[in-house]
Amino acid sequence: MDLNADLGEGFGAWRLGDDDALLTVVTSANVACGFHAGDPVTMRRVCASAASRGVAVGAQVGYRDLAGFGRRRIEYAFDDLRDDVIYQIGALDAFCRVAGTRVRYVKPHGALYNTAAVDEAQAAAVVAAVVDYDRTLPVLCLPGSVLAQLATGAGLRTVGEGFADRGYQASGLLVPRSSPGALVKSPDEVAERVVRMAVDGTVVAVDGTVVRLPVESICVHGDTPGAVELARGVRAALERKGTLLTPFA
Amino acid sequence: MDLNADLGEGFGAWRLGDDDALLTVVTSANVACGFHAGDPVTMRRVCASAASRGVAVGAQVGYRDLAGFGRRRIEYAFDDLRDDVIYQIGALDAFCRVAGTRVRYVKPHGALYNTAAVDEAQAAAVVAAVVDYDRTLPVLCLPGSVLAQLATGAGLRTVGEGFADRGYQASGLLVPRSSPGALVKSPDEVAERVVRMAVDGTVVAVDGTVVRLPVESICVHGDTPGAVELARGVRAALERKGTLLTPFA
Amino acid sequence: MDLNADLGEGFGAWRLGDDDALLTVVTSANVACGFHAGDPVTMRRVCASAASRGVAVGAQVGYRDLAGFGRRRIEYAFDDLRDDVIYQIGALDAFCRVAGTRVRYVKPHGALYNTAAVDEAQAAAVVAAVVDYDRTLPVLCLPGSVLAQLATGAGLRTVGEGFADRGYQASGLLVPRSSPGALVKSPDEVAERVVRMAVDGTVVAVDGTVVRLPVESICVHGDTPGAVELARGVRAALERKGTLLTPFA
Amino acid sequence: MDLNADLGEGFGAWRLGDDDALLTVVTSANVACGFHAGDPVTMRRVCASAASRGVAVGAQVGYRDLAGFGRRRIEYAFDDLRDDVIYQIGALDAFCRVAGTRVRYVKPHGALYNTAAVDEAQAAAVVAAVVDYDRTLPVLCLPGSVLAQLATGAGLRTVGEGFADRGYQASGLLVPRSSPGALVKSPDEVAERVVRMAVDGTVVAVDGTVVRLPVESICVHGDTPGAVELARGVRAALERKGTLLTPFA
Repeated sequence: MDLNADLGEGFGAWRLGDDDALLTVVTSANVACGFHAGDPVTMRRVCASAASRGVAVGAQVGYRDLAGFGRRRIEYAFDDLRDDVIYQIGALDAFCRVAGTRVRYVKPHGALYNTAAVDEAQAAAVVAAVVDYDRTLPVLCLPGSVLAQLATGAGLRTVGEGFADRGYQASGLLVPRSSPGALVKSPDEVAERVVRMAVDGTVVAVDGTVVRLPVESICVHGDTPGAVELARGVRAALERKGTLLTPFA
Repeated sequence: MDLNADLGEGFGAWRLGDDDALLTVVTSANVACGFHAGDPVTMRRVCASAASRGVAVGAQVGYRDLAGFGRRRIEYAFDDLRDDVIYQIGALDAFCRVAGTRVRYVKPHGALYNTAAVDEAQAAAVVAAVVDYDRTLPVLCLPGSVLAQLATGAGLRTVGEGFADRGYQASGLLVPRSSPGALVKSPDEVAERVVRMAVDGTVVAVDGTVVRLPVESICVHGDTPGAVELARGVRAALERKGTLLTPFA
Repeated sequence: MDLNADLGEGFGAWRLGDDDALLTVVTSANVACGFHAGDPVTMRRVCASAASRGVAVGAQVGYRDLAGFGRRRIEYAFDDLRDDVIYQIGALDAFCRVAGTRVRYVKPHGALYNTAAVDEAQAAAVVAAVVDYDRTLPVLCLPGSVLAQLATGAGLRTVGEGFADRGYQASGLLVPRSSPGALVKSPDEVAERVVRMAVDGTVVAVDGTVVRLPVESICVHGDTPGAVELARGVRAALERKGTLLTPFA
Repeated sequence: MDLNADLGEGFGAWRLGDDDALLTVVTSANVACGFHAGDPVTMRRVCASAASRGVAVGAQVGYRDLAGFGRRRIEYAFDDLRDDVIYQIGALDAFCRVAGTRVRYVKPHGALYNTAAVDEAQAAAVVAAVVDYDRTLPVLCLPGSVLAQLATGAGLRTVGEGFADRGYQASGLLVPRSSPGALVKSPDEVAERVVRMAVDGTVVAVDGTVVRLPVESICVHGDTPGAVELARGVRAALERKGTLLTPFA
């Protein structure tokens, strides 16, 4: 099983999350590439630190929207989105090379993640970017999403991820953040759910249904108070069960 | 001899210069990488077109300053400048790979070009970026400049360039744009000077001195009225003298 | 009748359209405010020139999206959009004050124009911005649009505009740019349609229906080849019919 | 005596400093205007909060450089800098108007502050911006600086400020941050120095010289750990001495 988190999400004088602490917990780092967050010095530092720890670096690609942190949907033309994604992967790959490694996977961020999960045009643009840049790169995404389907169809490897602290619907989709049950806050419950995802490949939805969730990676967050502790708890719970934590890529 | 020009300097809805026409004239294309000009769709298109014509692509790296087109000096910290340059090279290299080629050289743009020609700290940051990213990449620069010296000292190949339409001082430096003789406007005179650079390796300075100018590339411009015609004239004059035009990289 | 056009849509080194020529044709200038186009020096110059000619200046407010020229829809949160609009109006108003005038109206640009015409949340954010900043400012918009309705409901003056060179549907909406009949290209036909809008308050839709179109302003464009000539033709045709051309604000 | 601090220096998802806490301490708030920090929603919130507390709002104008937080010098052309400053003042003034107040003064930020203190061209551009926008606005600056001199010469009111936690040279200039004695860290010493500035109008320089320092405002910081406590200590020390704390503007 893999543990992934968003890293390098500061910009210039602004910091967000505790990159150093998270790098001691995760096995894969989704590093922001400068369009919604992330500056070159930060990208370099995170890539170097990840490489030295054996943490795999993935391209956390997003919309060109620093002011919105990539969290608001933008209706991109296909070519614009495909090439914005390629640009970001290439920029991050430069710092990976400097650190003696390579970008090992691609994960869309924020509104692009959500949009590409349901929107064929945007999913296809992300897929085209990966196909064009390096078709051996896996795409980290929501199992069963439109992005997962199109990526698979294009011959890309997809890696499904589960969310440690998010509620699920019976359909396997996440409970929207505006609805009850969207967030699981108890550290014990979070740990228990993650173990279930890893060992059984299932999750209990808000209505009690047991849903199959074929995930190879668990996403933890680092940008909220207590997040690093929660992530450590997830890791410890998995290790107690004897789960080997290792990058999927 | 090589002919280079700045290409891909539009941004989004804004165009600048005639990329298609210049690609029929030059042997090396300095492609803007998005920090002072250039957007991903344009970068991709220019790289693809250059690759299909056998024109070498170089990274036209600049300050992060879209509003100033990279033409105003910024006092960067060393790490910030080094990593901004690496980021840009990596982003452009992505589109070169998509086009089946690679970034073949690096040329600083605008105020970075002028500053790195005389300022050790900024020159060293550019050199460090190339050394970190790929030490086989040549640096296209002013012969004898601080950048040329530091790059050579670091074991990089430097390629000196001459300017088709600029006046020179007896020292080998360019006449500042604000001084008389800064620009050579007669197409015939431009052609004659370029032939002299290519054949004799010299230029006649504004005070009449004959100055040695060891150049492997001639820089032509494409963003002013008549510029493409001027560039065509330069190429034709060199070809009439039997000069083989081919990328230096 | 008023004639309006988009002006000041360059950014830094990049130019778009012929501001000087258009300022001799229109009575109202929609000046870009820096978020999708427009830089401070350009804003100042256009405001000064407009003021000296008696052309009214309106705030051409748009999404924060230089790379997309404000032409791609962004799903803004209400507060973010409202305050982005206020910021832009205030910035432009500064240059109007320097020029001895004031911002006289507000017109959304590009995707914000289209979205606010049909989307209640974005229309309400634009209305809230104008109400907060200065409730005496009229909103220039599509007659009958959601924006027009909400602005009227909030006690703002709305000014309907017709498009000189666009086809209309029987509903009074524009023919989408991707459909046949979207653009009217014959200068004579454009002039004839504009006169009909001004004199009869009607337009002939693509299906032949005569549609009522209560407009106080005609929008002409300046950013395409021949656009200025077309705008001059529109003005001349209106003047031949004895229509007084004067700012609505 | 006035107490000023930089506020509103977040951007989008990124926060910096504790605006709410500082607003209970200072009498003047230098609010970032969006070019080096500050977004419209933050500007509006800080202006509203400041207005409701009787804290004067000043325009914290800076270079257009989000990535560098306005801390690196940029060699602006005169018109570009003047108009960038006007744009920022106008944008902030919009939110002041919405809050029922007005921009009450102008203070350059970061590298612009330092450059305008010694560079005639940049100081003149800042002065021209204030003269053009509203010549009744005071300029908050270093006593005796080039900016202070040019502003006074242009008929503007200048307000000298002292730095609570910075060391001074015998010349009245600050000790550069890279030199010993640049920062005063002991809260007691900071409080004592501030009281001396307020009561005697002097400061003890690093070499022991007593320097005259005619200040009407004391600058405190809020973006470092312990900064808010330090600011509270400064305020308490001044109040214990019976100093009336009130905006200078």
